[in-house]
Amino acid sequence: MARPMPAGNALGIIAGGGALPIAIAQAARNSGREVFLLGISGTADEADLDSYPHAIVASGELGRQIELLREAGCTEVTFAGRVPRPKLSDLKLDAKGALAMPRILSAARKGDDALMRSILELFEQGGFRVIGTDEAAAGLLAPEGYLGRIKPNDQDLVDMSKASDIVRSMGLHDVGQAAVVCDGVALAVEAAEGTDSVLRRVAQLPESLRGTTSARRGVLVKSPKPNQERRVDLPVIGRTTIELASEAGLKGIAVQAGGALLLDKDAVTRAADKAGIFLFGFSPKELSK
Amino acid sequence: MARPMPAGNALGIIAGGGALPIAIAQAARNSGREVFLLGISGTADEADLDSYPHAIVASGELGRQIELLREAGCTEVTFAGRVPRPKLSDLKLDAKGALAMPRILSAARKGDDALMRSILELFEQGGFRVIGTDEAAAGLLAPEGYLGRIKPNDQDLVDMSKASDIVRSMGLHDVGQAAVVCDGVALAVEAAEGTDSVLRRVAQLPESLRGTTSARRGVLVKSPKPNQERRVDLPVIGRTTIELASEAGLKGIAVQAGGALLLDKDAVTRAADKAGIFLFGFSPKELSK
Repeated sequence: MARPMPAGNALGIIAGGGALPIAIAQAARNSGREVFLLGISGTADEADLDSYPHAIVASGELGRQIELLREAGCTEVTFAGRVPRPKLSDLKLDAKGALAMPRILSAARKGDDALMRSILELFEQGGFRVIGTDEAAAGLLAPEGYLGRIKPNDQDLVDMSKASDIVRSMGLHDVGQAAVVCDGVALAVEAAEGTDSVLRRVAQLPESLRGTTSARRGVLVKSPKPNQERRVDLPVIGRTTIELASEAGLKGIAVQAGGALLLDKDAVTRAADKAGIFLFGFSPKELSK
Repeated sequence: MARPMPAGNALGIIAGGGALPIAIAQAARNSGREVFLLGISGTADEADLDSYPHAIVASGELGRQIELLREAGCTEVTFAGRVPRPKLSDLKLDAKGALAMPRILSAARKGDDALMRSILELFEQGGFRVIGTDEAAAGLLAPEGYLGRIKPNDQDLVDMSKASDIVRSMGLHDVGQAAVVCDGVALAVEAAEGTDSVLRRVAQLPESLRGTTSARRGVLVKSPKPNQERRVDLPVIGRTTIELASEAGLKGIAVQAGGALLLDKDAVTRAADKAGIFLFGFSPKELSK
């Protein structure tokens, strides 16, 4: 194998789709740490992985994944990026994967969080410390306070508060991470479809219900679920989020400080300022009020 | 005016979009009662209204609406059908409408229910008794128990219970009336987009997450909100609901008995049986457990 072999304290990144895995790899490398990426086939963009030591694996090849991470000298492992629930036929179970299946399937019936926790445990039993993005790349976490120049008005604050209440209620049922409220009316609540789809849906609602690019109103609140396994699934805000929020006529986006990831903070803040959208990191205490 | 003028005890139907207003008119006429339909322009289908005494009005012409209902001999009024929140410029406010606007706008900021209540009050002050579909056409209400031949299995019952919990939680925030849960995972929660849109969204999710027409799983639960103004806004199940639930691969639909309307019960039940979907009317007590 021509792949360079980091020895000792490398960070293993189990990489699904989207820009997050590479953002973490870059942050870790910038801080002087070796990285090794395991791209989940069918989800990770292989071209993106090319600048880093990596391998492509099927999601069910659990034995091979653990072996590759060991060979690469990884002591810590982090999960990053979107991995849609695979069909059983796409799992390509190896021996270890097949042995773990009954437990994983039973956890899956309890919801996404239980499913992910059962997978994390397998890597912990494999001898790795499983860490979250907050630890693997702390610089990506949303800070507290306003990020850009735009500030909310009184109605925006009312909408933000109501959207937070909804997100908190839903979190108790292991549902979603986002809600959009405009002038006191809940326009959308996220479940399995993802935040991009939520924002596209709001853009399709009649203009009488929502804001427009020339008269913005309404707020998106994103937050981790109260019982969420934070090591695998923090909400992510990127430039696409700002673009879609802009097209939906929203006035602002609020995320829990330390509980959401910002991909390229400077570019995201500039895009929000340009669109006239406020970006706010609220204290976790505000959500538990 | 060539319109026949019912005198005395006619039922006034303020008619938005969809099949419900005509279903109510038909039920009332079958029971020997005169009816008069006020179609809200831009939402009611005028061709549908032609078989009944009717007029078309703008939503802001409140004075004219009350006058027409009086002329038609209406003592009771019921609201039926979808009326999207209009733009201010489409309201065509008459004098009474303009006078009522400050109060309506202030109510609108508190949510859909408060908005509708403030409009009902105007008709009550106009001397009408405002009744719900449950009173205007009791035969349309969903009964308790199973409607068709298909019965849920254990997993369906778990999904139904979780979806009920979600709907109940959301109702406390004046949000939506529906949720879809499949194998313990919440696939969709309704807010402003309507149940048809929810079902179309579930059909777009990866098949690994949801059922299919050949292997159905997952349940839609629809229920009125706990604080809902039932006189204006009961959930409606029609043949379209069954078709869309079928395309989304769902195994069943559960509604609150007496808290949802079935348009053409026999046709809906036949369609559900044919698709392999159970239809269940649960007792309101089951939702408050």
